Amino acid sequence: MQDQITPDDAFGGPDAGDGAYALDTVAIDAILESVEAGDQSRLIELLAPLHSADIADVLEQISGAEREALLGLWGTEFDGDVLSELDENLRADLIETLPADVMSSALKDLESDDVVDLVEDLEQLQQTRVLDALEQADRVVVEQSLQYPEESAGRLMQRELVMAPAHWTVGDAIDHLRSENDLPYRFYVVVIVDPKMQPIGKVALSDLMSSPRDTMLATIMDEHFHVIPVTQTQEDVAYAFNQYHMVSAPVVDEEGRLVGVITIDDAMLVLDEEAEEDLRLLNGVGDESLTDSVLDTTRQRFPWLGVNLITAVLASVVISQFSDTIEAIVALAVLMPIVASMGGNAGTQTLTVAVRALATKDLTASNAMRVIRREVMVGLLNGLVFAVIIGVVGVVWFGSAMLGVVLGLAMIANLLIAGMAGILIPITLTKLKIDPALASGAFVTTVTDVVGFFAFLGLAAVMLT
Amino acid sequence: MQDQITPDDAFGGPDAGDGAYALDTVAIDAILESVEAGDQSRLIELLAPLHSADIADVLEQISGAEREALLGLWGTEFDGDVLSELDENLRADLIETLPADVMSSALKDLESDDVVDLVEDLEQLQQTRVLDALEQADRVVVEQSLQYPEESAGRLMQRELVMAPAHWTVGDAIDHLRSENDLPYRFYVVVIVDPKMQPIGKVALSDLMSSPRDTMLATIMDEHFHVIPVTQTQEDVAYAFNQYHMVSAPVVDEEGRLVGVITIDDAMLVLDEEAEEDLRLLNGVGDESLTDSVLDTTRQRFPWLGVNLITAVLASVVISQFSDTIEAIVALAVLMPIVASMGGNAGTQTLTVAVRALATKDLTASNAMRVIRREVMVGLLNGLVFAVIIGVVGVVWFGSAMLGVVLGLAMIANLLIAGMAGILIPITLTKLKIDPALASGAFVTTVTDVVGFFAFLGLAAVMLT
Repeated sequence: MQDQITPDDAFGGPDAGDGAYALDTVAIDAILESVEAGDQSRLIELLAPLHSADIADVLEQISGAEREALLGLWGTEFDGDVLSELDENLRADLIETLPADVMSSALKDLESDDVVDLVEDLEQLQQTRVLDALEQADRVVVEQSLQYPEESAGRLMQRELVMAPAHWTVGDAIDHLRSENDLPYRFYVVVIVDPKMQPIGKVALSDLMSSPRDTMLATIMDEHFHVIPVTQTQEDVAYAFNQYHMVSAPVVDEEGRLVGVITIDDAMLVLDEEAEEDLRLLNGVGDESLTDSVLDTTRQRFPWLGVNLITAVLASVVISQFSDTIEAIVALAVLMPIVASMGGNAGTQTLTVAVRALATKDLTASNAMRVIRREVMVGLLNGLVFAVIIGVVGVVWFGSAMLGVVLGLAMIANLLIAGMAGILIPITLTKLKIDPALASGAFVTTVTDVVGFFAFLGLAAVMLT
Repeated sequence: MQDQITPDDAFGGPDAGDGAYALDTVAIDAILESVEAGDQSRLIELLAPLHSADIADVLEQISGAEREALLGLWGTEFDGDVLSELDENLRADLIETLPADVMSSALKDLESDDVVDLVEDLEQLQQTRVLDALEQADRVVVEQSLQYPEESAGRLMQRELVMAPAHWTVGDAIDHLRSENDLPYRFYVVVIVDPKMQPIGKVALSDLMSSPRDTMLATIMDEHFHVIPVTQTQEDVAYAFNQYHMVSAPVVDEEGRLVGVITIDDAMLVLDEEAEEDLRLLNGVGDESLTDSVLDTTRQRFPWLGVNLITAVLASVVISQFSDTIEAIVALAVLMPIVASMGGNAGTQTLTVAVRALATKDLTASNAMRVIRREVMVGLLNGLVFAVIIGVVGVVWFGSAMLGVVLGLAMIANLLIAGMAGILIPITLTKLKIDPALASGAFVTTVTDVVGFFAFLGLAAVMLT
């Protein structure tokens, strides 16, 4: 069976393109109808063709009540892979509510690394619940992986892998693979190890296939490859896969012994996570998901708004210092938000570029000075341009040349500072080993607000009164 | 040789961890010294162990003058893969400046899809320059790919692939692979096609390897797989790979005939691009890179700041309607930015979640209503909480209970509106087939600024004067 993804239909419903997208509203409605009708065979028939990731999406998109009903009707038919596709918070809920028999039958469908990925975010009590549902052998493997730090290569890797000594021939390897009946579900390379179990090369399956049986693996193995320390952060792992277009890489322990392998599909998920995290943090959102309750979401967002309130009050304190000036010239109150807001935007622009460049390691000690200089120049240039524009606006609007000059000067000052803050703050945080995406935003806007109001009102106080 | 990536060193320099990271400042300094010394053999020796992606990073991180000197010294030794690793703008510059002989020798190193990826962003004149440097055969392939729309599967796919009829045995396939001497550089599956060249299944190499020679491919082929229409957007392709954990997928033309294959490493790059694009657009940055000149960068950012200026002036117009009120109670001027800024932040929070959820198709017609309701409730709740906090601040600071009440009510109104705008605007834009990340930011902040100032000053005018 062939599916064509045409995600335009995601917002389609009845009018949706060719409706081929596995998950258009029509499909979901049909599923919900079968649930309401309590028609299990129909439900199973509808879910059968769907990928577990799509089924997870269904569960995420329907209401809590509908979800409960669906799971109840699905029963032990429940597909374990769906669990690993669900977003964390919903997954935790499910694991709490799923009956023991459903759980254990569900877990049988999973690879060890999926189970790890599944239990690591759970609280102690739920973890034990899952681990108990596992067979002894699997449980041991999972518990071993859980020994490694969170978000480390050790958690990401799969332990099932294919290895061979360098003196084997292609024929030996193929015969081994044919005889071996417990092969990993998916593998792309044979890792070549020395007697001490240290990886010394790898042979891509495509090379293995296309070489004569009597070829020695040593002669076709790729000796230039990356090994990943088991303790390396998943972020660095994803970076390596992306930077070097790796498809799979051996993971080694402190003694350099082969302990597992990480494949590109794992890295791809991490890369996606990390990019999304930068986006969220930069815009003041935590690790929330659409299925979170109103209360959870409110609690999640509160701290970010709290920080913003403090910086906003700080800006107000600055303004309050110039109450008399404002009282004398009320036009200042009208115009002052412009300078601050422009600074905030310019600062965010620089900050965004800087944070991404730091994440992708395009911004390093080698070019930091040049980039800083560039951002300052850009801030100055845009400052000059917008100084003229806003200056004219000020003059035309309030008919005071001097007011226009004040506006222009304040604009230059603030965009210049915005550029500096936007680049210096994330670099400094990185040097302090703090995630620049996390805190930079608040710092930068504080700077641009304070400077914006102070420059504008201060200049006005001096030059207009 | 084994490299361990320890990107902490990216900001390391001499004090950098174990310095194993291919690109610590030490390495770059050494390279630059060899360039200054004009010592070509030393330069080549230093670059040899580096991955082309790392060499590209070096070129991106050194100054323009240093770059020129390095390339001059490197000469025809120049590695073509570096071209495809460079960021677009710098790549364009290079292609303009590289001598013809260097170009043609460089291009020989590249796969057809890399060449396509390389020329598609170039202007007509440069394109011809590159195409002329190609051998006839390659040129035809590249020109064919360029027939497909930009950012389509047709541009992304590689045409080199391995296919076989269903009636072949594993042995036939392996013998074919061994005899075939023009195999793709990297492949993971054998695509099974019918006589009309339409894909009817695929066999992972790992399954091919582990099956006896006499097994019919028909019996081990996976018939449940995604085919990608050659005209599908690369964004949708990346989504499919990420959603369904695909490793490679056949690409078909209008008649469903196999025309190429896309592999996960291509999809990974696109996914990274698309996530970065969302981040940039949401924060008002275009497709710029660290190597852009000051002037280019200034020009790039100008339009975003221009739009922001318009919305800021709009807010000022609202404020100006209440000049008399402000003149009477200058405290209003001091406090009014708080309400606006809180609204802006709350709106951005919702917007960020919405834009990502739309990109990952977690927000669809099926759950839109529920999500909208949730965002409104969250806005209301946080509004109530911060209304109390800011109300108290107002009372304590200016000793007017009424002022506190006004502040609180305005806060509730603005956070409520912020929640609505943050979710409704991106959904509407999506329905209008406009990228929500592109325009939402400006709309949302305009709404929150206008509503923020209007609600606060309007209420003040009514209740305080």
